[in-house]
Amino acid sequence: MTTTTDLRTVLDITAAAVAQDPSAAVVTFAADSDLVGVTEVDVRIGDRVVKVDEPEALGGTGLAPNPVELALASIGSCQAITYRFWSEKLGIRIDRLHVEVRGNLDIHGVFGLKDGVRPGFRDVEVSVQISGSESPGRYEDLRSAVNEHCPVLDIFANPIPVVTSMRVQPA
Amino acid sequence: MTTTTDLRTVLDITAAAVAQDPSAAVVTFAADSDLVGVTEVDVRIGDRVVKVDEPEALGGTGLAPNPVELALASIGSCQAITYRFWSEKLGIRIDRLHVEVRGNLDIHGVFGLKDGVRPGFRDVEVSVQISGSESPGRYEDLRSAVNEHCPVLDIFANPIPVVTSMRVQPA
Repeated sequence: MTTTTDLRTVLDITAAAVAQDPSAAVVTFAADSDLVGVTEVDVRIGDRVVKVDEPEALGGTGLAPNPVELALASIGSCQAITYRFWSEKLGIRIDRLHVEVRGNLDIHGVFGLKDGVRPGFRDVEVSVQISGSESPGRYEDLRSAVNEHCPVLDIFANPIPVVTSMRVQPA
Repeated sequence: MTTTTDLRTVLDITAAAVAQDPSAAVVTFAADSDLVGVTEVDVRIGDRVVKVDEPEALGGTGLAPNPVELALASIGSCQAITYRFWSEKLGIRIDRLHVEVRGNLDIHGVFGLKDGVRPGFRDVEVSVQISGSESPGRYEDLRSAVNEHCPVLDIFANPIPVVTSMRVQPA
C-alpha cells in the first residue's frame, strides 16, 4: 500500500483549515444525468461521465452498472476510504482492505406490482476484510469509528432530507 | 429517443414472470471494493470495474468520482430510469429527460471534527427537467408515481437495514 505520510498531512491541513473557517466545511457535490437511450444514462460529475444502464432483463442493454449497483459501489468504496482515513487518524496500520457488499431488492416495489413492498433494498450486508498486524481490539476501535463517521453508511442507514422538483418544457 | 416498444414488452414479461413466481422478484446485487492506492478504490460489479477516488484536497489523486458523488450519480440515474419505466407503464410520452442533483455535506462529520454533525448529506435537491407535449397534470401523475417507486430515492429518504461485519487476517 502507498506510503501514508502525505495522507496524514492532508488530513491535518484539512482539520486546521476547517477549524479556522468552519463554513468552509460545507461542500456541495453535484451529478447531472441525461437519459440517452432506452434506459441508458450519462451522468456528468465535474468533467467526467459515468455510464449507467439496466441489464437486458429490465429493458436496457447492460452496458454499465445500474443505479442500485452504483449505490452499493458507493457504500463499499466509502467504507474502504473511511477505514483509510480513520486508520490514519488513529494510527492503526492496515496492509490490505477488501469490502464486499450485497443488497437484496424485491422488484415488486419499483414496478408497483404489489402493495407494501418498498422500492429500495430490504437489507444490505457489508463485509470488511482487513489484513494487518495490530491487535483485534485495535481493529474493533477502528470499525466502530468508521461506522460512526462513514458518509454513505449514514445515507443508507438514516433518513436524508431530499427535496424533488420537476419542470416541464413543451416539446 | 429510442423506440419504446421493446421496453414495454420487457416490462410486461417481467410483471408476468414475477406474478407466476413471486420469489423470483428478490434479486441480490453485489459490489466488491479493494483499496488499491492512498484513497483509490477499484469496485468490481460483475465483470466491470468502477474507479473511485478522493480529490487531492482530501488526500487522493482525483482520478475518479468520490463515494458521495457516486451516491448522487446513483439517485440521479435512478430517477431518470424510474421516470422512463413509469412513463411506459402510464403511457406518458417523454421527449427529453435531464436530472440535476446537488447534495450539501459538512466534512466536520466524516473526520469527527465536531460533535453532532452527521457524516452523510445534510440535504439533497433533485431537479427533474422533462420535455414533452403531455398536459402538466399528466406529468404530475408521473412524478408522483416515480417518487413512490424510485429505489435509490427510497435508500436516501428512508432507513435501510445495514449489517456490517469485519474479519481480520494477520499480515
